[in-house]
Amino acid sequence: MTRLRVHCFSISIDGYGAGPNQSLEQPLGLGGLSLHEWIFPTRTFHEMQGEEGGTTDRSDDFAARGFKNIGAWILGRNMFGPIRGAWLDEHWKGWWGDNPPYHVPVFVLTNHPRKSFRLEGGTTFHFVTTGIHAALQQATEAAHGKDIRLGGGVATIRQYLRAGLIDEMHVAMAPLVLGSGEHLFGDIDVCKLGYQCTEHVPTPDATHIVIAKTR
Amino acid sequence: MTRLRVHCFSISIDGYGAGPNQSLEQPLGLGGLSLHEWIFPTRTFHEMQGEEGGTTDRSDDFAARGFKNIGAWILGRNMFGPIRGAWLDEHWKGWWGDNPPYHVPVFVLTNHPRKSFRLEGGTTFHFVTTGIHAALQQATEAAHGKDIRLGGGVATIRQYLRAGLIDEMHVAMAPLVLGSGEHLFGDIDVCKLGYQCTEHVPTPDATHIVIAKTR
Repeated sequence: MTRLRVHCFSISIDGYGAGPNQSLEQPLGLGGLSLHEWIFPTRTFHEMQGEEGGTTDRSDDFAARGFKNIGAWILGRNMFGPIRGAWLDEHWKGWWGDNPPYHVPVFVLTNHPRKSFRLEGGTTFHFVTTGIHAALQQATEAAHGKDIRLGGGVATIRQYLRAGLIDEMHVAMAPLVLGSGEHLFGDIDVCKLGYQCTEHVPTPDATHIVIAKTR
Repeated sequence: MTRLRVHCFSISIDGYGAGPNQSLEQPLGLGGLSLHEWIFPTRTFHEMQGEEGGTTDRSDDFAARGFKNIGAWILGRNMFGPIRGAWLDEHWKGWWGDNPPYHVPVFVLTNHPRKSFRLEGGTTFHFVTTGIHAALQQATEAAHGKDIRLGGGVATIRQYLRAGLIDEMHVAMAPLVLGSGEHLFGDIDVCKLGYQCTEHVPTPDATHIVIAKTR
């Protein structure tokens, strides 16, 4: 059965998944990039960049797990690009260049219709204007029995979390405070939604936590 | 110079320092006690209970640090006891029996005046009805150059944190979610208040984090 999974979602000690003042220059907000420092040295991240080498520690295990058995992705629109409102043209193809690191169908949530397009390496971007349930249904069909990875950002994950649709979520807590920004768990009662902490793997760079639906 | 320090303050992955539905039977709220499981095996905790043995790992180091160079404590009223509103009589002497684990003056924040009293082992409880600044001033005088430990609970720590009066805070993040309860950092911008993460020590039982004023 297809499961909806979140991986490598980094948050600060005070719970923020992105910093304040997001912009084109700082898509993760002020200080937001440092949330992800734990992943940069890993072999998996090196591979995503087409580079050799990298660490093969427990952090890399978590990074690698995020690419196993994934048949489709769902992204919020801000993870696809900095453009807000209607698409001005079809020029923007995502942050990732000609060969994005997905290699499967990617469903982008947006209020503004746009035609699907295919890039190198098997990545096709589809644009879903009919909400999170519709995107999940389309991604499930596209995944052909494999799982779906929900990429983010925070607002998108919160929508799916509140709806109880996420089966498993790996959160990496980075050793820093952000003070403000987009809070991942704020006002969401994950216990009431049926989630529990099922894994806790502390490392010097981040504390890896998995919460999963246990009922 | 006397510093105001918080130690061993346990929170859940989703940021709660106490669970929902606090009561006499569950003073830490539903699930709240499990936040503290990391400390129970430590030698420091055993000593507090007058018992031999216990672990001497990094978690114990953090537990022990909380008792070094402490000349006074400040507690919120709910940490002193379950009674709300006016004191009915002078019967309640705290949760800790005849010889509480403080051994220094303890200042209890309350809206209801009560006479100071002394117990075995050097612990004297004072009741401060004039607010957090007054309690800090009285505790500073009583500490005679040593530091003050702010015990909690969540609401009391949030008051001192918002006022920028805490110099250093050790938080132990336990591997569990609580879903609701009293959130430690919610709506407090610790960065704007001048705090940064200065230590991050992951252990299997808890991730130890220290935030401190760096400006």
